[in-house]
Amino acid sequence: MGRWQPGARERLERAALDLFLDQGFTETTVPQITARAGLTTRTFFRHFADKREVLFAGEHLVPEQVARLLAEAPPSLGPMDLITEGLAPAAAEVFQGRGLDHLLRRRAAIDAEPALRERELRKYSLMSEALEKGFRDRGVDDLTARLAAEIAVTAFRVAVTRWLDRNGDPDLPTTIGQTLAAVRHLTSPQA
Amino acid sequence: MGRWQPGARERLERAALDLFLDQGFTETTVPQITARAGLTTRTFFRHFADKREVLFAGEHLVPEQVARLLAEAPPSLGPMDLITEGLAPAAAEVFQGRGLDHLLRRRAAIDAEPALRERELRKYSLMSEALEKGFRDRGVDDLTARLAAEIAVTAFRVAVTRWLDRNGDPDLPTTIGQTLAAVRHLTSPQA
Repeated sequence: MGRWQPGARERLERAALDLFLDQGFTETTVPQITARAGLTTRTFFRHFADKREVLFAGEHLVPEQVARLLAEAPPSLGPMDLITEGLAPAAAEVFQGRGLDHLLRRRAAIDAEPALRERELRKYSLMSEALEKGFRDRGVDDLTARLAAEIAVTAFRVAVTRWLDRNGDPDLPTTIGQTLAAVRHLTSPQA
Repeated sequence: MGRWQPGARERLERAALDLFLDQGFTETTVPQITARAGLTTRTFFRHFADKREVLFAGEHLVPEQVARLLAEAPPSLGPMDLITEGLAPAAAEVFQGRGLDHLLRRRAAIDAEPALRERELRKYSLMSEALEKGFRDRGVDDLTARLAAEIAVTAFRVAVTRWLDRNGDPDLPTTIGQTLAAVRHLTSPQA
């Protein structure tokens, strides 16, 4: 007790999702999660501020990561190039190697609870604001920066939903590519 | 009392917005609204189910209107043509001739209250679902239907925000045209 527990974070996440899906998010307590994971509440609070953070950990880092990625990209790249090149790596960073099964269970837990769905929407809205600011800092005009940010987040959301709905086949980078190709085709003069 | 009051609806809307902005949405009661408008609560409930509906009246009709517009459009028109031709008339229908000042006050009232902001987002999400279904009913593939719906709603939201931020100049149809042109330019191969 009190020592570093290898794999503790993943065990806590798994136990929390089991309980959220079995009995609901509201009804689940931190002691129930730690009991199921065979760990102490002390260990829990070393990894997460509260039970909600089990679902949204690392989210507060996204705006900063977006700002860094956009600031470091070659100045010659326009907003749509940046979206095309950046979206798949950004998705990989957001999901941090978590498997399809974990993400499907996470989505089911969030969908079951209006307050969590709202939080998920807020996450996307913060992502969009960070992108908009990043584009403006690169000299993109206000209207284009706003639209590019919205389209990037929309493509991200649509691609992730589609990928999960299809049980991970084709893989996420491929699904993101298909989604961006559909955006381009839709808005091209021939479409 | 009990008779039809000419202009009653507009007087109630104006009184409600005055109070929402002065003292907050939560603190405002229907009797306060009717007292300010010089009308009875009976008249209020002939026009609105509750005080929230003063801000969102007619919203439940939007999905049906979207479905009708899409079903009646010539089959040759693709999703982006439909968005280009339909967005400005749709905006006119949504705002039903309400002036800039009313819409600015309505936005300020909604922005001040998280539950109202969430309701406004839900409105856009219902609009997007109706568009997606309408496109699919026209034979558009699932991915394109979803993206076209999201892009239409995004362009609508961005254009309305921009129009309000700039105090109505240029007018809304022009602002919608500029916004859609920026979407096309952004996603074109040259951009």
